[in-house]
Amino acid sequence: MAKVYLKYKKGLRAEMGHPWIFSGEIEKIDGDFENGDIVEIYNYKGKFIGKGYINTKSQITIRILTRNKDEEINEEFFRKRILDAWNYRRKVIETTCCRVVFAEADFLPALIVDKYSDYLVIQTLALGIDKWKNTIVKVLKEIFNPKGIYERNDVQVRELEGLPQIKGFLTEPFDTTIITEENGVRFYVDIENGQKTGYFLDQKENRAAIKDIVKGADVLDCFCHTGSFSLHAARYGAKSVLGIDISEHAVEFARKNAKLNGFENICKFEVHNAFDVLKPWSKEGKKFDVVILDPPAFTKSKQTVENAIKGYKEINLRAMKLLKPGGFLVTASCSHHMTPELFYEVILDAAHDAKKTIRQVEYRTQSKDHPILWNSGETLYLKFLILQII
Amino acid sequence: MAKVYLKYKKGLRAEMGHPWIFSGEIEKIDGDFENGDIVEIYNYKGKFIGKGYINTKSQITIRILTRNKDEEINEEFFRKRILDAWNYRRKVIETTCCRVVFAEADFLPALIVDKYSDYLVIQTLALGIDKWKNTIVKVLKEIFNPKGIYERNDVQVRELEGLPQIKGFLTEPFDTTIITEENGVRFYVDIENGQKTGYFLDQKENRAAIKDIVKGADVLDCFCHTGSFSLHAARYGAKSVLGIDISEHAVEFARKNAKLNGFENICKFEVHNAFDVLKPWSKEGKKFDVVILDPPAFTKSKQTVENAIKGYKEINLRAMKLLKPGGFLVTASCSHHMTPELFYEVILDAAHDAKKTIRQVEYRTQSKDHPILWNSGETLYLKFLILQII
Repeated sequence: MAKVYLKYKKGLRAEMGHPWIFSGEIEKIDGDFENGDIVEIYNYKGKFIGKGYINTKSQITIRILTRNKDEEINEEFFRKRILDAWNYRRKVIETTCCRVVFAEADFLPALIVDKYSDYLVIQTLALGIDKWKNTIVKVLKEIFNPKGIYERNDVQVRELEGLPQIKGFLTEPFDTTIITEENGVRFYVDIENGQKTGYFLDQKENRAAIKDIVKGADVLDCFCHTGSFSLHAARYGAKSVLGIDISEHAVEFARKNAKLNGFENICKFEVHNAFDVLKPWSKEGKKFDVVILDPPAFTKSKQTVENAIKGYKEINLRAMKLLKPGGFLVTASCSHHMTPELFYEVILDAAHDAKKTIRQVEYRTQSKDHPILWNSGETLYLKFLILQII
Repeated sequence: MAKVYLKYKKGLRAEMGHPWIFSGEIEKIDGDFENGDIVEIYNYKGKFIGKGYINTKSQITIRILTRNKDEEINEEFFRKRILDAWNYRRKVIETTCCRVVFAEADFLPALIVDKYSDYLVIQTLALGIDKWKNTIVKVLKEIFNPKGIYERNDVQVRELEGLPQIKGFLTEPFDTTIITEENGVRFYVDIENGQKTGYFLDQKENRAAIKDIVKGADVLDCFCHTGSFSLHAARYGAKSVLGIDISEHAVEFARKNAKLNGFENICKFEVHNAFDVLKPWSKEGKKFDVVILDPPAFTKSKQTVENAIKGYKEINLRAMKLLKPGGFLVTASCSHHMTPELFYEVILDAAHDAKKTIRQVEYRTQSKDHPILWNSGETLYLKFLILQII
C-alpha cells in the first residue's frame, strides 16, 4: 500500500477529524498506486493519520475511511460501516423512507444510500468509493433484502473525479415510480427522474414539525415541488392549501400525490414563480395563516452568496406581508454557504423592512438521518425556522 | 400621560422592536408622572414609538407595552395579552404544565406566569407591572379558574426596581407541593421553595427529545436536580439511571419523584459534585451509553464568561470520556452570555482534547412556551444538543 506523507504542519484539520486531504497538503507519495486505491496517510512527523482512497485528479485528493491502521478496507469493513449507519437510523428515526448512509457523516465518504420503502437508491460520487460499488451492493442486498436497487450517478460532481454520469438498475429492473410513506403521508417517488435520489428526505422531521401550526389554517406553500409540505399541512388539518411551483412537472406530481391521499379538495396546486406572484398577491390583500418557503438552494458557492441573500430577503419579506397578524412563517435554506447566522440576519432584515416583529417558535436543522459531523464543517446545510410574525 | 422624548438618534433598537428604553437614551420628560406609570415615548423627531411603564430608579427606565397609540393600558389590555399568550401555548404545546406568559416575549415585560396543572405561579419583576398585579390576578382567575395562585417574587432583580422580595398566596392558601405531569412523567413541584417558580419548564420538549437514545441504555444524569431528565430516561426505557447532584435536598426530591412513578429500581440518586467525581470515575473505567449535562447557569454576566467556558469544557470533556464508543452526550447551557457559537466552540474544544469525533443528532433551544423574540435578543438563552461521541 502506498504511503502519503503530508507537508510541514499540513493535514492538521484531518488529524482533528476532518475526512479530507487536499492536493496542496501532500509532500510525497512512496510506493505505487492507481487512482481509487487505498493509501496510508502520515503527517510530516511520520505519525499515522489514517487510511483512505486517493484520486490525484481531484482537489480532494484523499478521503479518509479509517483512523485505525489495523482496519482493512474490504467487504467486512463496508458491512460494518453500513450496519452502524443503519442501526443509528433505526435508533433515532422512523425508517420507512430515510437516508441510510450520509457519506462523510457516516465515515463512508462520497457514498449516499437512500431507502424508499423496499427500494434503495445509491450514489457513489468519488472514484475511490465507486470502485467498491459491487461490494456495497452485495452488502446492501444482504442487510436490506430490497426489492430493488437503483443507481443515481447522473451527478456533475462525478466528473471532477473523472467518472461518467450514469443511472440505472443495480438489480433486476423494476417500476421506478415507487409509493412510499412519510409521517403518515403517502408519496409517489420517481427515483429515475426525480431530483437527487427522487425526494428530499432531509426535511422529514421538519415536515412533521408544522403539525400544530397548520390546524384549521389557510396555508400557502411557495416552492411546493411535488407537494411534500402541502400534503403534510392537509394531513395535519389545514383548512386550505395552495401550493405553487415554477415547474409544471412538479405541480402535476403534487396533484397526483394529493389524489393518492384523498386531499384533492384541500390542496390546490398552481404553476407560478414565487418571485413574480408574491408581491402582487400581497398588494391585492391576499392573506394566509401560514406561509411555507422551502426554496431550492439559491447559492451553491461562496461567490453567489450576495444574490442568494437578495433572493432570501425578497421572498421572506413578501411572505411576511402575506401573513395575517400572528400568522406563521415556515422558512428554510438548504444552501451550505448560507450560514445559520447569515440566514437569521437576512430574515431579521426582511422583518425590519416589513415592519414586523418575529417570535421564534422553533429552529431545526436537517433530519437525524442526516447527522452533522462537527469536525468536518461540511455537513450542516439545512436551516429550518418556524416563526410567528406579529 | 407624561411624554418621554429620546435623545438624538437614540431608541433606534426600540423603534425596530426592542422592548426597552435605557435611562441614557432619554432627553426630557414632559408632564407629571410617578414611577410605575404609563408614559408615551417619542423619538428625537417627535415620532411616536410606543407606550410603556416608567421607573427612573431602573437602568431599564421604560419597558414598552404597546406600539399602538390608541391602545389603552387597562384590564382589557391585560386580558387580551394574556389570552393571546395562552392561545399560543394551546396551539403549540401540551399545556398541563407550561409557561403561560414569558414576559417581553409575550409583550408583557417583566411578567412571568407558570402553570402547574390547576395552579398558577406568577412573578412581577418590575414596578410598572407589579402595580397591575391585582388586575392580572383577576384576569388569570377568569381565564384559568385555577385552584390557586402563588406569587414567587422572592427574586433579587426586584430590588433594582425598588421592590421588596416577597412570596405568598394570591388566593386562599393551598398545599404548595403540587403533583403535575410532563410528557407522561409525574412530578412533585414545590412552588413555595423550589427554584424559579418550582420547576424548569423550559426543558420540557428537550426532555422528550431524549426518548429514542435512552432505550435500553445505562444513563448518567450529572446535574440531576429533582430528577426531571432521569425520570424521563426511565420512562423511555433506560436500563439504569444514575442521577447525581450536589444538593442533598434535590436528591431527596428526585428519590420522591422516582417513587411517585414507580422507577425506584431503575433510578438511583447520589449526592456528588460532578466536578469532583467525573474524572476519577473515568479513570476507574466507568462507562455509560448516555451522559446528560444540564448544569445551572455557570455565568450570569459577560464578565464571568471565561470561568464558565472552563466549567463547560471540563464537564463536557469528562462526560465524553465516560461514554462508550458511539454513546450519546446530551448537553445544555442556560447561560444567556454563552452564545450558541461559543457553546459549540467549547464542546468542539473538549472533543479535541478527548480525541473524540462528534456527530450532531439534534440541536434545540428552549421549549415553544418560551418563544424567542428576535428583535430583543434577550430571550434566546437555552442551548440543548444531542451528540453522538465516536
